[in-house]
This record gives sequence, C-alpha cells and structure tokens, in this order.
Amino acid sequence: MRSAAGDGFLAVDSGGSGLRVVVGTPDGGTTAPRESRVPVRTGPRGIDPGHLMEQLVPLVRASQPEAGVSGIGTAVVGAAGFASLGDGLRAELPGALEREFGVRTVALVADAVTAYIGALGPRPGAVVAAGTGLVAIGTDLKSWRRADGWGHLLGDCGGGAWIGRAGLEAALRAHDGRPGGSSALLTRAEEAFGPVRELPGRLYPRTDRPAVLASFAPHVAACAESDPVAGGILREAARHMADSAAAVCPAEGEAHVSLTGGLFAMGAALLVPLEEELERRLPHARRVPAAGGPLEGSVQIATELARGALTLPGDEAMVYVVTPKRG
Amino acid sequence: MRSAAGDGFLAVDSGGSGLRVVVGTPDGGTTAPRESRVPVRTGPRGIDPGHLMEQLVPLVRASQPEAGVSGIGTAVVGAAGFASLGDGLRAELPGALEREFGVRTVALVADAVTAYIGALGPRPGAVVAAGTGLVAIGTDLKSWRRADGWGHLLGDCGGGAWIGRAGLEAALRAHDGRPGGSSALLTRAEEAFGPVRELPGRLYPRTDRPAVLASFAPHVAACAESDPVAGGILREAARHMADSAAAVCPAEGEAHVSLTGGLFAMGAALLVPLEEELERRLPHARRVPAAGGPLEGSVQIATELARGALTLPGDEAMVYVVTPKRG
Repeated sequence: MRSAAGDGFLAVDSGGSGLRVVVGTPDGGTTAPRESRVPVRTGPRGIDPGHLMEQLVPLVRASQPEAGVSGIGTAVVGAAGFASLGDGLRAELPGALEREFGVRTVALVADAVTAYIGALGPRPGAVVAAGTGLVAIGTDLKSWRRADGWGHLLGDCGGGAWIGRAGLEAALRAHDGRPGGSSALLTRAEEAFGPVRELPGRLYPRTDRPAVLASFAPHVAACAESDPVAGGILREAARHMADSAAAVCPAEGEAHVSLTGGLFAMGAALLVPLEEELERRLPHARRVPAAGGPLEGSVQIATELARGALTLPGDEAMVYVVTPKRG
Repeated sequence: MRSAAGDGFLAVDSGGSGLRVVVGTPDGGTTAPRESRVPVRTGPRGIDPGHLMEQLVPLVRASQPEAGVSGIGTAVVGAAGFASLGDGLRAELPGALEREFGVRTVALVADAVTAYIGALGPRPGAVVAAGTGLVAIGTDLKSWRRADGWGHLLGDCGGGAWIGRAGLEAALRAHDGRPGGSSALLTRAEEAFGPVRELPGRLYPRTDRPAVLASFAPHVAACAESDPVAGGILREAARHMADSAAAVCPAEGEAHVSLTGGLFAMGAALLVPLEEELERRLPHARRVPAAGGPLEGSVQIATELARGALTLPGDEAMVYVVTPKRG
C-alpha cells in the first residue's frame, strides 16, 4: 500500500543547458536548486522521458532530506520544446513520477510559460526568454501567445545558438576570404575550438550541437564593440527578439515586457540595441526586470498547484495537468 | 592467395542525398550508375566507413557482372565533408576496400574535387557545387582553393538545406505573426510536413536533418515568382554562391566558372539572379556549362588513376591516395 501523497512538490526547469530541480512545500520553503548540466535528449518521440528521469531522480533524492517533506505529491516540469516535442513526456512522465516518488498531480509546462510566470507572475504582457534558444510568450491573462521557440534549425532567432552560429559563420567567411567575415571572430573561434578546418568534425557528431553553438555567443559579445561584424550580429539578434516580443504582447491595455534567461548576462553589447528595438516596437509596454527565472516560475506554478489553486490560462500545448483519478 | 588486382575500377560519389557508384575500365567503359538513397552517416569519427561500405558492397556486387571486369584494382571515393570529416575514411576505407574487392589503389577525394573535375576537367577556374550543401572550389592547376562547404550549421550558404531552412523560417514567421513571414510558404510547409506545430518533432529527431531541410527548397523556388519573401531567399542564395565562387576563382589569367549539382535543376528562379551576381563578381571568368557531375569527376579521376597518370594538384585534405606497398 502506498502512503498518502506527501505535501511536498518538486519543480523542474529542463532547458538547453541541463536540468534544474528544487523540492519545496506550498508554504514557500524550497531547497537550493540542484543541477545536471546534461541537456535532456530528444529522440524519435520527442523529449526523452527516460533520460529526463535518469537525471531527475538523483537530484530529487539529494534534495529530499534537506526539504523535510513527508513526500512529494505534486510535480511541475517546465521543459524546453514541450509544445512540439512533448508527446513522450505526456505519455510517460506522469506515470514515471508516480512510480518513483508517489507524485499524484503533475503539470508539464512549456518552458516559455515557466519563464513568463517566473519573470512577470500573473500580469499581462510579454516575456522574451533567451538562453541557448529563444522564445517569446505573451498573455492578456485569457490566453497565451507564443512566437518563435522553434529550435536552432527553424528559428530561435536571436538566441544563444543563433548568435554563436552567426559568429562562427562570420569566422569561416574570414577563413575562406568571403565577404561578411570577421578575423577577430576567426581568432576567437580557433582559440575556442582549435583549427577551424576541424570544426565540422567537432560539432556535427555531437548531440548537443545547439549548446556548442551557443557557447560561442559570449565571444561574439566580447568582440562586438570593436568588430563591426560581431556588433551587427548582436543588433540583428536584438531586432529578432523585438520582433518576437511584438508578435505576442497584448496590443492594448496594460502590458509589461520582461527579459529572462542566461543570454542577457551578455550585457550592454546585446541589451543596448535590444532596449532601442523594444522602445521602437512596443512603446506602450512597460519594461520591468524579471522577478525570477523559469525555475522560479516552475516553483510558483507548483506552489499554486499544491494549494489546489492554479490560475494559469489553460492551453493544452503549453500547460498539461494530470490530477489524481478519484473513485 | 589473392589473384592479381583486376583492371577495373569503382567510382563513388557520396553526398547528402545518398551514394552513387559505377564500375568501369580505364578504356572508358562504365556501368550505369547504381544508387542508394541513404546518406552515409556521420559518427564520432566523422563520416562512418562501415555505413559507407554497407551501402557500397551490394551496389558494386550488382554492377560487377555488367562491367565485365576481371577484378577491381582501383577505387575513387568522392565524399561530402571529406576534408573535415574524413579521418575515419582515411583510417579504414582503403583496408575495407582491399578486403572486400581486392582493391589496391584508393583515392579518397573531397566531393568538391570530384565536382570540379566532373564539371570543368583539368582547366583553371571555379566550380560552385550545390545540392543539399554548397561548396565552391577553384584552382589555377597548381593548388586548390575552397570556400564554404562547412555544413548546414556553419555555412553551406545558398545550398539546398540553406534555402529550405530559410523558407521554413519564413513559414514559421508567418505562423507567429513576426515580420519577414510568408503565408505562401506557410501553406507549402503545411502541405509538405503537416501542422507546423509538429514540425520540430518531425525534424529534430531525424539524422538526415539537412536533407529534410533541403526537401523544402523546391517549394521556395515554386513560390519565388509570386512571393517576395521566397524570391528574396533565392536572391540571397545567389549572392552567397557568387561570394563563394569569387573567393576561389583565380583572379588572373584564363578562368572558367561552372555550376554543378542537383540544386540548379531549380531553374530560373535561382539561375537568373545567380547569373547576374556572377557577372558582377567575376566579369573576367567565362561561364561554361558543367560537362558532368561529381560521379563523372570520380570516374575521370579513377580512369587516370587506373592508367597510372593522376594529374590533380596535390592536397592531402582534398585528394588522399593510397597506392599498393611494393616489396
């Protein structure tokens, strides 16, 4: 016989650079985040639930004693790519979480939603979430709108992989003697990856290609002030971000705009052109700093869910909730 | 005891869309090409020699009776990505070809070189080879110059995957309501791949992502006349191609420029802007039609090699020849 579901929750943020977890209680206490730096694999059925669990279990086991919870009744998993690659998670994760931890209530949530709630909480507006990838999400508190977040081959325009990829392309243009090249970025690329002739062999066989590309983005930022090609890449990234924000922000009424995600640690080289673009595209929206990140958003959603009071706009592709069967 | 090496050769073209093989003799006779439509996999050691052999063996076995050769003494393998992803091929393919067919002399050649020789033969100039990927190669008959050919994440600018990717990005921009979108391409994308929300799930788990992206390029061409976004993608592709051609073409003396590869079957939508760009960038170079494709180039190299008279400029990364040990 299983014991009654505990009052604790676990809140997860699964992104392009790995998995972060806290265990908490609805009264507001949480453990310090624990982290796996391995991005969850994508397989034939989308995001791989087995690989996610493999990383999640030891992190949760390590967090549980510190959390002092009787058990974990609620889990919220915010996952990058969930809206389009979430079929495997929907099918298997609730069952796996129940078997492993006795979890009864599960919410699988697009990372865009955890990012939004973490940044703005339940206020209307738009959030640009940018790390390895990039997605903009907006709400008028009745429904969600999403822009981009299509991954490194189809979009994520302006995100870390996009910037790093553009920087590496500029490095290789310089190597080849094609226009649009940057010898500063070529020097950086060789420092970071070795001789560029070997770069395809180092990049393509890897399964974390977007993260490898994104690892070059800080080099682009470092060159941006002195190198016009690098500066141009960041200005174009800023335009793409503002395009996405404008596509999802409520056009009327009160609107807040916030930026969240590791990419913005890049600083002025990105933020100065971005503020200009946002001012131009969304003059009616009030710029506010993000209160927290997607993990904090996941915690807020888990707290509401554990209290039985989820207030998010419903949208099956973005917020998938499995509650215990009654009877 | 192995019988003496036969006088026949096999000539291979391994590209982004599969493997093509002919068996021939140095007097000029060859079998009809046989084809596997499975691109050779890239693994941790680059292009996978085992996967290449797996596809090659049945094609050669099927061709041999028709060729009427006593045995196969010479093999030329032109392979996409060879310059940077060829370590596994260099290490294993000559041995595997000897064990399987008794081959004594092997040339592993960058597909750019087979494309050049197939198109222009031993004349100075530049060739743009474009299919799924894109590479430009040029020679003054003393050394080779290469531009682009870095693969779908780092370059191949203007190639099939590049055009298809740009077209899908434009489709998704229309879906999101971002600028730069094309509703014509969105309609095409949904016809080709189903609801776009599922597109990431259909694309990212595949191992032949560049080929999937390139499969959308003809849709971009089909829309180019009536849709300014699609037309703009092809004009930009043409500029990238001319940039690469200009980077490798001898700046002085006689120079020929040729286009080769399946992408140019796309017709006027690509060729009209490309001819304009080439005229602007390389006014001194004479435009000539390609005499043949990379498989014909592979056959020409194999014919020379079987006759013991290879005349290609030497370059270890581009033309790697293994001849029988004497003694």
